[in-house]
Amino acid sequence: MSAFTKKYKDLLEKELKQNVEKLVAPSNLKDSMLYSLNAGGKRIRPLLLFATIQSYGKDPFKGLLPATAIEMIHTYSLIHDDLPSMDDDDLRRGLPTNHKVYGEATAILAGDALLTYSFQIMTRMTQENIPSDLILTTINLLAEAAGAEGMVGGQVADIEGENKALNQRELEQIHLHKTGKLLEVSIIIGAILAGATSKEIETLKQFAYHLGLAFQIRDDILDLEGDEAVIGKPIGSDMDNHKSTYPKILTMGGAKKELDLHIKGAKDLLRSLNLDSAILEEITNLIAYRNN
Amino acid sequence: MSAFTKKYKDLLEKELKQNVEKLVAPSNLKDSMLYSLNAGGKRIRPLLLFATIQSYGKDPFKGLLPATAIEMIHTYSLIHDDLPSMDDDDLRRGLPTNHKVYGEATAILAGDALLTYSFQIMTRMTQENIPSDLILTTINLLAEAAGAEGMVGGQVADIEGENKALNQRELEQIHLHKTGKLLEVSIIIGAILAGATSKEIETLKQFAYHLGLAFQIRDDILDLEGDEAVIGKPIGSDMDNHKSTYPKILTMGGAKKELDLHIKGAKDLLRSLNLDSAILEEITNLIAYRNN
Repeated sequence: MSAFTKKYKDLLEKELKQNVEKLVAPSNLKDSMLYSLNAGGKRIRPLLLFATIQSYGKDPFKGLLPATAIEMIHTYSLIHDDLPSMDDDDLRRGLPTNHKVYGEATAILAGDALLTYSFQIMTRMTQENIPSDLILTTINLLAEAAGAEGMVGGQVADIEGENKALNQRELEQIHLHKTGKLLEVSIIIGAILAGATSKEIETLKQFAYHLGLAFQIRDDILDLEGDEAVIGKPIGSDMDNHKSTYPKILTMGGAKKELDLHIKGAKDLLRSLNLDSAILEEITNLIAYRNN
Repeated sequence: MSAFTKKYKDLLEKELKQNVEKLVAPSNLKDSMLYSLNAGGKRIRPLLLFATIQSYGKDPFKGLLPATAIEMIHTYSLIHDDLPSMDDDDLRRGLPTNHKVYGEATAILAGDALLTYSFQIMTRMTQENIPSDLILTTINLLAEAAGAEGMVGGQVADIEGENKALNQRELEQIHLHKTGKLLEVSIIIGAILAGATSKEIETLKQFAYHLGLAFQIRDDILDLEGDEAVIGKPIGSDMDNHKSTYPKILTMGGAKKELDLHIKGAKDLLRSLNLDSAILEEITNLIAYRNN
């Protein structure tokens, strides 16, 4: 991990913790929220946001509040996805899932509270002297990316796709929504805060497209070839869930080739922009070649 | 129902429907969202918001977007509250609950989508020429009222209070959060959009305090004395759930007296403001003496 990612990961994790600790709310609810926020994770979405701002030579600290909001949304989505009525997972990152520790009702409500809080945190950007119009633009984009037209819609499509043999195009549509939209909006909010042009934002969206698919392909590969102790959940759970995956559709060799193509596509687009993109490249590599 | 409430209820219901129908999202998700939004209901929160604006002689139409957002948040909370791991209700307003029709996973996700969408709709107030600063203030208040420090926290406290003999003060704290905060913020957002002074907003908060408790006391009374066919769910379900209620703590006579006191308190505060408050009084009566 570079000094940059270490620094901003620590900053984010402190911010996540402090924001929940200061809530005047039932302690059991706060504990449940903190449990999942503190359960580790790569913090890829916040890091993408920070790194995008940094690539424009601006102060990444400016993105701390939206990075915190986005990580809360990501965390709520994991809590709800793990529920018995959804993926029914007992383990996440090597720890019991939220509902296993706090019960289903509290887990659902902790997710609801994190989602709601994320929008409150977005409004606090006024304290960073960011113009109100710009803040509203980012709130609108975040809600769109996280909601029915984005992540939640992707999760519904993912559930509907179980026990069906999907083709590559259908699989991509699911993942571009379920995972891709929140990755994309992390980059785009970073770009907006850094003052990117609309043309640059379009290029960054294409970069995010490749990144989102690379992320999912790597996930599918790890589900078959990963180290259980490192990924923190049983190997082959996608198979058990009768989910369509890249290795199933393309073979393992084909999936790895596809991953390389998306990583090359992402890096080529990044280099086409005249930015200081070393950290964004580092995160791209982290996504492509991670072990968990 | 007065011409005012009829007009704005219709307007709101059209807006709720159109906003979901235009989403580009899995049809099953949209159907599930629409099912609960269209399941009727008194629309008390939106009506309070419209009526507060009207009481200042301003155009209530200005409140259509936040009224829509608040009703979506209220609806998501009902969907999640009805889940098997929470209240485990099969009927709501005489219809099967959302998860009974669409399954638990889709019901949870429809709730998540409604909550997320509500904040997107809030940002669209820019189209009504409302200043961005003011919009951010209302989003902040709404998230606070709906989240861990408000409605969600109240729901957690409500669950924790089951099977316990609560005193009146504890019961009030639960309901002021679970129900009261969203009622209050409906009035306060209306007041902000109408240009109310901070002093008026403080008085309206006290009005909302009485209204919130009156709402809950009436709910508890209806659970014992209501007409099953009118309230749309079995009588005595609070007893079955081992919940503390006003009639249990105060006796039925005491609960009715307490209801009258809160209604008198609400109306006195309303009259202390120099507003055209006929519609707000109508809604106060609707809350106090409703049959469902």
